[in-house]
Amino acid sequence: MTMAYRLGIDIGGTKIAIGLVDDDGEIVHQGKFATGETIRSYDEAVPGLGGLIRSFCEHLGLEAAQIRSIGIGIPGVIDYSVQTITSCPNLSALDNLALGPCLTEELKIPVWVENDVNLIALGEYHYGRGQGCSDAAYIFVGTGIGCGLILNKDLYAGSNGTAGEFGHMTIVPDGLQCGCGNRGCLEMYCSGKALTLKAQEAAVAHSRGWSSAYELIQAGREGDPVALPILEESFRYLGMGIANLVNLLNPAMVVLGGGILTGWPAGLQTVQDVLRSSLREIFWRHLQIEYPLLGEKAGLLGAAVYARSKEAGWS
Amino acid sequence: MTMAYRLGIDIGGTKIAIGLVDDDGEIVHQGKFATGETIRSYDEAVPGLGGLIRSFCEHLGLEAAQIRSIGIGIPGVIDYSVQTITSCPNLSALDNLALGPCLTEELKIPVWVENDVNLIALGEYHYGRGQGCSDAAYIFVGTGIGCGLILNKDLYAGSNGTAGEFGHMTIVPDGLQCGCGNRGCLEMYCSGKALTLKAQEAAVAHSRGWSSAYELIQAGREGDPVALPILEESFRYLGMGIANLVNLLNPAMVVLGGGILTGWPAGLQTVQDVLRSSLREIFWRHLQIEYPLLGEKAGLLGAAVYARSKEAGWS
Repeated sequence: MTMAYRLGIDIGGTKIAIGLVDDDGEIVHQGKFATGETIRSYDEAVPGLGGLIRSFCEHLGLEAAQIRSIGIGIPGVIDYSVQTITSCPNLSALDNLALGPCLTEELKIPVWVENDVNLIALGEYHYGRGQGCSDAAYIFVGTGIGCGLILNKDLYAGSNGTAGEFGHMTIVPDGLQCGCGNRGCLEMYCSGKALTLKAQEAAVAHSRGWSSAYELIQAGREGDPVALPILEESFRYLGMGIANLVNLLNPAMVVLGGGILTGWPAGLQTVQDVLRSSLREIFWRHLQIEYPLLGEKAGLLGAAVYARSKEAGWS
Repeated sequence: MTMAYRLGIDIGGTKIAIGLVDDDGEIVHQGKFATGETIRSYDEAVPGLGGLIRSFCEHLGLEAAQIRSIGIGIPGVIDYSVQTITSCPNLSALDNLALGPCLTEELKIPVWVENDVNLIALGEYHYGRGQGCSDAAYIFVGTGIGCGLILNKDLYAGSNGTAGEFGHMTIVPDGLQCGCGNRGCLEMYCSGKALTLKAQEAAVAHSRGWSSAYELIQAGREGDPVALPILEESFRYLGMGIANLVNLLNPAMVVLGGGILTGWPAGLQTVQDVLRSSLREIFWRHLQIEYPLLGEKAGLLGAAVYARSKEAGWS
């Protein structure tokens, strides 16, 4: 093998995915591992991940020298100035860890760490939806809301790496209390978490057997007259949030995905109706709203693209 | 004179300001002219502006060859792909005019046109507040709300030149009807226009002699118990809008100015209180909120900076 390979890694709360990515952006091999067995604590995170990466490579008959670099996505915020994870709510063993520099030292391969949603956006942008756009926003509605921004053809992470907190936009002044401390965050109105709460409220008020967002959406698909307006209202708020983003950033494309939208694809029409009625025609005219194309692969490919982009500056 | 000069021009609804700017960013000469006498119609706009610029230069004893380039700010939106003004609500004679290319032809000097608030942001960024920041938002609360964004150390105008429409962020779902067609825009809650409406409502409801934002603010300064909560609420909405912007873009600095804020400087404290209570600590910690430094000069300097930045690509 004379080709250059990179590892793209996505560390989630329960699973760690590793992909061996070639120069053409193909994932030539992929593995999934339990996060809890690899990252048991702050002290064991670096040796645990180092061991996992080494055994992944050995299993494929690869030498470390054949791996150019490694990109890792984590569900948290990174302080780039010191390459340290500032905040990782669902995986607190990584809090305050200089994961990139420590793993680089451990493996003797350059390792860079970024927010996982930013890397998903980067992967889609390079190999999936939005290729060639100067500016695009990637929004994923799942349990929470994730957002990654490509501005001027590059990942935009902000001055301290915290850009893209679209889910914590105040959408209802003095509205529902969010776990972040703020009130009225979009995530409290359109997300899996929000719809689960709505399902449980509606179950009591209207004698339905719902306890989850999934059951609410299922009822909506069957035309339930209680479920439909709840879903409609939820996606109207998402539409308002996207209109706010478009007013501020004027992206050529908004890529909209995630499990909740996949479950309730009619939500896309609601979002488009809100955009059409709230944006001025010159703002709406050129805007494309599209589904993502790559699914789970996006994060691994984005991690590899990110690592490749950093190699030039590394010594 | 062997120095390089550029003209920075700011075309407003009533006045046209022209500044002769040297390489050090000093305005060495400045003039103001009535817009109505120069731009009488679509057909007369280019000869009118061309004549004004020529007589401005002749008056200073300058030859056209001594002017490297010209930057012009207009209160509207530009379609960069064809260098045409797409929309200029307060100066409709410029609608659909390819002002840059036509003036370049007329004067034989390269001319570039940008949105006026974007050029104010660019001027402040280069010579006033925010120098050296990677990312900064410039927000001006006057009759309406203007906003210019510097992202990755450069002016960010979006895919179609319409970025920065911060004032049309939906801040109250299904709220007050805005002239743009949307409901609940921030500009309907915190701007000169909004405060004028509030003043007139309060005048009727509470027997006050107010008919303008100015009188409401004046009453607030005197501690009027009706005026104070109106002003407080108005700036709370502004704070929510800025929190939304910060969540999305994580700028290092928000520069906050404009006549309404100058009149009611206590509004800055209200904005900061909202930011502190609604942003997570890691988002708030590094954020600076500052007044602009340059006043009226910012737009002229920004226009000159913009023209300079475009010269390399011109032939």
